Amino acid sequence: MAQQRVDRPKSNRARSSFSPLKLFVIPGLPEIRKNHDLPKLMTNTASKAGIVFEQNDILVVAQKIISKSEGRVVHLSKIKPSPESQSLAKKLENDSRFIELILRESRRVVRADRVLIVETHHGFVCANAGIDHSNVPGRDQVTLLPKNPDRSARRLAAALRRLTGKRVAVIISDTFGRPWRLGLTNVALGASGVPALLDLRGARDRGKKILHATMLAVADELAAAAGLLMGKSSGTPAVIIRGYRYRPTQSPASRLIRPAKVDLFR
Amino acid sequence: MAQQRVDRPKSNRARSSFSPLKLFVIPGLPEIRKNHDLPKLMTNTASKAGIVFEQNDILVVAQKIISKSEGRVVHLSKIKPSPESQSLAKKLENDSRFIELILRESRRVVRADRVLIVETHHGFVCANAGIDHSNVPGRDQVTLLPKNPDRSARRLAAALRRLTGKRVAVIISDTFGRPWRLGLTNVALGASGVPALLDLRGARDRGKKILHATMLAVADELAAAAGLLMGKSSGTPAVIIRGYRYRPTQSPASRLIRPAKVDLFR
Repeated sequence: MAQQRVDRPKSNRARSSFSPLKLFVIPGLPEIRKNHDLPKLMTNTASKAGIVFEQNDILVVAQKIISKSEGRVVHLSKIKPSPESQSLAKKLENDSRFIELILRESRRVVRADRVLIVETHHGFVCANAGIDHSNVPGRDQVTLLPKNPDRSARRLAAALRRLTGKRVAVIISDTFGRPWRLGLTNVALGASGVPALLDLRGARDRGKKILHATMLAVADELAAAAGLLMGKSSGTPAVIIRGYRYRPTQSPASRLIRPAKVDLFR
Repeated sequence: MAQQRVDRPKSNRARSSFSPLKLFVIPGLPEIRKNHDLPKLMTNTASKAGIVFEQNDILVVAQKIISKSEGRVVHLSKIKPSPESQSLAKKLENDSRFIELILRESRRVVRADRVLIVETHHGFVCANAGIDHSNVPGRDQVTLLPKNPDRSARRLAAALRRLTGKRVAVIISDTFGRPWRLGLTNVALGASGVPALLDLRGARDRGKKILHATMLAVADELAAAAGLLMGKSSGTPAVIIRGYRYRPTQSPASRLIRPAKVDLFR
């Protein structure tokens, strides 16, 4: 079955609901380890906090805990850096084992300066291939991004459906820097059940003029909204968004990756 | 009084509130015209909808209505394109008067292809200098971005304070495309009262490791969240965000512009 590249709103009203949007964290999640049953942990922890999942809730989960549950945690002591990594590490004044890991997770280096900006095997352009020391127990451990964040999102959504009986969309997020503007924003690496892109091309504005070139990166806006409650240092890696009106769909976040040939911003 | 470049959270708890975030539109705003008293229109319309502003609410307003109220609406018929604009318009198959306006609003052209990507006089990198036909009455009219969106935000915040007696932060937003990723997201062009950037450098993660390089573009995340309720075609250009915990501050959105010399992503 061919998938549409993007999704269209049901009607103008689909995005113009006057009912409020609500966001809240699932408090009290324990430190996640490999082979933890993440969906069960989520629903149990939510339940203890008095949270009952509702139909069409959107669960935004920080990449970090998905990576941990999938065993994407690496001990730097076990990494043998190549000569290339060693020489690059020297230039960047960084740990050659860390650099080695970044290069392994990347298809190309965009820029090697104070940090390494790379294009990961997924196609994400980000600092250090998304590899991170923070919120990982142990001095010597780092997390890698999930291998296939869209698949991780689909699996989590399917498990939540079984456990709750509700259709819950899932977004897996991480904070990325970006060109032109300072600061990190939370973006969608993986998605299931919610439109990644909403295509308003052909829709009309209030004056009936056709709206050109208007595709909204809905999954990124949802991730950014959840980011407001995901303090990096506060241990709240799971946020529920309730009340957003959307057309349920399979629409992977990989669609948000802009092919180089249509990237006029580079 | 010297202003801090960025803001720091009061404590880890400042961003880890377990209380929900609520977003809702101000429904029923009329078509905005030059010299309309926008703050009064906002508060009256909100009041009719049963909305009472609360202390530390954040009002996110689409650039379009700020521009209209400030008279930043231009009739293309009154624009005389230069020879440079005419030749560029021919290449881009666009209206030479529209191109002329874009060039007037820009300090440089980043890319001239199907659209013009420019750096505006404010320093924003965006398509067509943010000039837009949509949701402007009349076939021949366009809106320009506000001249100084931070000043517009400060004025609106000050007026809201007078009218409501409450400290209400203001963000003026627009949807911009970006490199690497597809789709538009709503970003902050102007801000007053809320941290544009939140500096977590030096803060510690849950395992007490120092968080490096972590500055969050809070104003952009707030704008993106509000964007979820601002359908381009639905006439809801004003969204209230309630329940976000922040340290009130004067922190202009111009701080979000990344100086070229620290832009490793370009």
